[in-house]
Amino acid sequence: MSLDEAATKPHEELAATLAEGMDAVNVLIRERMASENAPRIPEVTAHLVEAGGKRLRPMLVLAAARMCGYAGPYDIHLAATVEFIHTATLLHDDVVDESQQRRGRPTANLLWDNKSSVLVGDYLFARAFQLMVEPGNLRVLSILSNAAATIAEGEVLQLSAAQDLRTTEDIYLKVVRGKTAALFSAATEAGGVIAGATEEQVQALFDYGDALGIAFQIVDDLLDYQGDAKATGKNVGDDFRERKLTLPVIKAVALADDEERAFWTRTIEKGRQEDGDLEHAIALLEKHGTLEATRRDALDWAAKAKAAMAALPESDLQRMLGDLADYVVARIN
Amino acid sequence: MSLDEAATKPHEELAATLAEGMDAVNVLIRERMASENAPRIPEVTAHLVEAGGKRLRPMLVLAAARMCGYAGPYDIHLAATVEFIHTATLLHDDVVDESQQRRGRPTANLLWDNKSSVLVGDYLFARAFQLMVEPGNLRVLSILSNAAATIAEGEVLQLSAAQDLRTTEDIYLKVVRGKTAALFSAATEAGGVIAGATEEQVQALFDYGDALGIAFQIVDDLLDYQGDAKATGKNVGDDFRERKLTLPVIKAVALADDEERAFWTRTIEKGRQEDGDLEHAIALLEKHGTLEATRRDALDWAAKAKAAMAALPESDLQRMLGDLADYVVARIN
Repeated sequence: MSLDEAATKPHEELAATLAEGMDAVNVLIRERMASENAPRIPEVTAHLVEAGGKRLRPMLVLAAARMCGYAGPYDIHLAATVEFIHTATLLHDDVVDESQQRRGRPTANLLWDNKSSVLVGDYLFARAFQLMVEPGNLRVLSILSNAAATIAEGEVLQLSAAQDLRTTEDIYLKVVRGKTAALFSAATEAGGVIAGATEEQVQALFDYGDALGIAFQIVDDLLDYQGDAKATGKNVGDDFRERKLTLPVIKAVALADDEERAFWTRTIEKGRQEDGDLEHAIALLEKHGTLEATRRDALDWAAKAKAAMAALPESDLQRMLGDLADYVVARIN
Repeated sequence: MSLDEAATKPHEELAATLAEGMDAVNVLIRERMASENAPRIPEVTAHLVEAGGKRLRPMLVLAAARMCGYAGPYDIHLAATVEFIHTATLLHDDVVDESQQRRGRPTANLLWDNKSSVLVGDYLFARAFQLMVEPGNLRVLSILSNAAATIAEGEVLQLSAAQDLRTTEDIYLKVVRGKTAALFSAATEAGGVIAGATEEQVQALFDYGDALGIAFQIVDDLLDYQGDAKATGKNVGDDFRERKLTLPVIKAVALADDEERAFWTRTIEKGRQEDGDLEHAIALLEKHGTLEATRRDALDWAAKAKAAMAALPESDLQRMLGDLADYVVARIN
């Protein structure tokens, strides 16, 4: 089942249900990304913010807060906070990865320069922290500042683990938590805390965001080796060509004999790739069953997310978040 | 009077008086810059943190808190916070400026790469926010997150104002507040707030840090055109060669006739510099008296800092901070 064939799209259902709140989030984002003194800031930010994206992270905040009975207003601030943190990390990621395209448009580092991306990213981080101070909730501040540190640590870890065949599944998981899951889990956890949810509910919301983020990233890794380019917008083998040690490869390296190890060393560590290497890499992944094992991991994490959500009181939003966990893995199931 | 001839060095006197607190700050900095998962982080950070520098900003926090009667422990956290924010901005500045040297050593972007500098800077920002949450004081959080936004905004403003002859003294002041004064004033203000100082005292501490930071930066601009390379470690004319619109030039552009304007357009805006241009630039600054006017501005800001400090209760630390304001301008007085 591809994205387009999906019968229902839970993120669209969430967007419709949360439309009023998300409008308020978008107003706040536009207001706070403005800068009277430095017009370069809203230019760069608007390029990225207006490009859209699903606004999944702010929706997670609103959904978590509202399913726990919160009527506002500070879930709006926290939703804008997580979107600012996300946008700031995208700006910095594109500098670090020397990316040319993001969401189908040229990246800010290409349209302006790396300097603007670094400094406007810093500005958005600072604005995020200003926003998160406003609700006056110290526990929320602690959750979000911890998430920011986990994100940055994950990014640095990825930098040093990249192309290092000693990278284990444990390290992979830390990188993925930093890249994706930390902000998902902070979004749902903070939503619960601002709503005054019980400790059990807050824990379930954290577990949901954490598992959903991990499933999300593993699916991404898997589709890079077996996806439909039309549906994913990525070419099969991009990660291999960029020498990324993603989960199917990490699993295959762990099972490699000497000859296979030499292959991975040459293609990933040393980056000396030749014609036919991608096909050979995929054959090795097939031989050791690591694409299938990776698929099972993604399904397990999605099931964990769904189970965490099932522990929360039944409601429309609770059902939609459960559906979202299914949807994330629908493309590989 | 050069740095070496100064009879007393107030920052050394401060360092001696605050030695115990600063030891605790250094311990906390080392503890918090560690990362179990990403060893690249302490490597990069240690390179910069261990290189020293005067640790002026954390000393300002401790001095402000203690002169207002605070006995700890959270001034230590706030001192480490401002040093982390400062170190993070240095890492990002060196990427933006493509710098080769910092504090007499090769920069991190040169020793490692721009990627590490961007991401480790992000990590330090996040760690700074974690640290500042710990005292549990929402007003302090507001002061420091506002300062972080002012810093980032000032940096972006500098990027777009650089080489733009329309830059006014007003814009210059905003850039300088971002580059230097915002963190100085946040350091002294936050120190007062954590100590439970009166509103008048907190305002005086803010004014002191703000004026001290501005004086500090203006002196830097001035010495670039008339300093002693041995004492400053900079070559005369570096700013001109790097096409920086500093205060003496902004003042001279405002007074320029058509021919002089053409000169500034060619050398600063277009960057087409020839032999003899630096000498001609200095002659223009002398002709319009803008070096002298800049010197007077620096002295005025130092006097404002000293006056703000004089409004606070007399004490050894209060006297040292007053002396520090004199010391900052001693090289040009």
